[in-house]
Amino acid sequence: MSLVLDPAAQDLLFREARTANTFSDEPVTEEQVRAIYDLVKYGPTAFNQSPLRITLVRSPEARERLVGLMAEGNRPKTATAPLVAILSADNEFHEELPALFPHFPQAKDAFFAERPVREQAALVNGTLQAGYFLIGVRAAGLAAGPMTGFDFAGVQKEFLDDDHTPLMVVNIGKPGENPWFPRSPRLAHDEVITTV
Amino acid sequence: MSLVLDPAAQDLLFREARTANTFSDEPVTEEQVRAIYDLVKYGPTAFNQSPLRITLVRSPEARERLVGLMAEGNRPKTATAPLVAILSADNEFHEELPALFPHFPQAKDAFFAERPVREQAALVNGTLQAGYFLIGVRAAGLAAGPMTGFDFAGVQKEFLDDDHTPLMVVNIGKPGENPWFPRSPRLAHDEVITTV
Repeated sequence: MSLVLDPAAQDLLFREARTANTFSDEPVTEEQVRAIYDLVKYGPTAFNQSPLRITLVRSPEARERLVGLMAEGNRPKTATAPLVAILSADNEFHEELPALFPHFPQAKDAFFAERPVREQAALVNGTLQAGYFLIGVRAAGLAAGPMTGFDFAGVQKEFLDDDHTPLMVVNIGKPGENPWFPRSPRLAHDEVITTV
Repeated sequence: MSLVLDPAAQDLLFREARTANTFSDEPVTEEQVRAIYDLVKYGPTAFNQSPLRITLVRSPEARERLVGLMAEGNRPKTATAPLVAILSADNEFHEELPALFPHFPQAKDAFFAERPVREQAALVNGTLQAGYFLIGVRAAGLAAGPMTGFDFAGVQKEFLDDDHTPLMVVNIGKPGENPWFPRSPRLAHDEVITTV
């Protein structure tokens, strides 16, 4: 019993949660998305930079445009998921830093004056937050289907702008019929962890 | 009540969990690290590529070398945390792909033959897993102190090799006295989430 988190929560978030490939018709509500965000926004990022941005693709027209930009194998599930979200990183996150990191407002200029530095920081910290978001979707009793198989330049052009880099597209909903592949194996402790 | 995860678990993982800057003397055991890994290894990555690697810095000699590579402001806490872990991404993760993704073993050569592609995939998916790991540390009732303020080239040279890219260094333990800054504000829902 080395974990404090109760076993039901362990199962909900990690052990029984799976990447879904089919979804039921049950909608994902605004209230659910709000609750997920209000939980995962507290996950840590460097300088509290919080660069993750989320685009909810709710209109049929927008969904159709997005499906056309997905890799072939990702199209059916992206077309039918109750909700699809584009996760992106805001490369201009430094504009919010004086408000987000009030005990060291100089960080904006001292560390993030250069765009390439911001792009790298936004990629890394936005991806960390994407991890928290996937856990948050599961905390809402929903399955997430994160995908990186899509036309990144096309998604940026159609849905974002030059200041936002796409990270992943996530299908969200209750699992449907035959929702998952067999669980793939994981690396053993000793293949991942070394001690010096 | 839009979340299924029980409120105590929400607090443990997100709401009350904080990035600690001081730690108690209580050791972090091998059993705790094993339990954390055995939970978070199930978090999803693209093609189940699982590129995260973890180096536990346990010997006093190794700790001293690492402290010397940390940014000034990170040295005292890195010197005194009960456990320090270097998280890195394995750029040669594709060697394990046929075992990790058995229903499409061709992925190794079809998608990951080129080193720059692997480096980008390992950075993104390793960082996702770093997010899961930080959640896992909190699931063990411990505080994590993730840091990117260190000499990346130096840490790679001293603790890793050419095939492993450092992602972050994480202090781990029970919080000590005055362990945290005041909670910094987070972006509001409407600053992060847009609907199309």
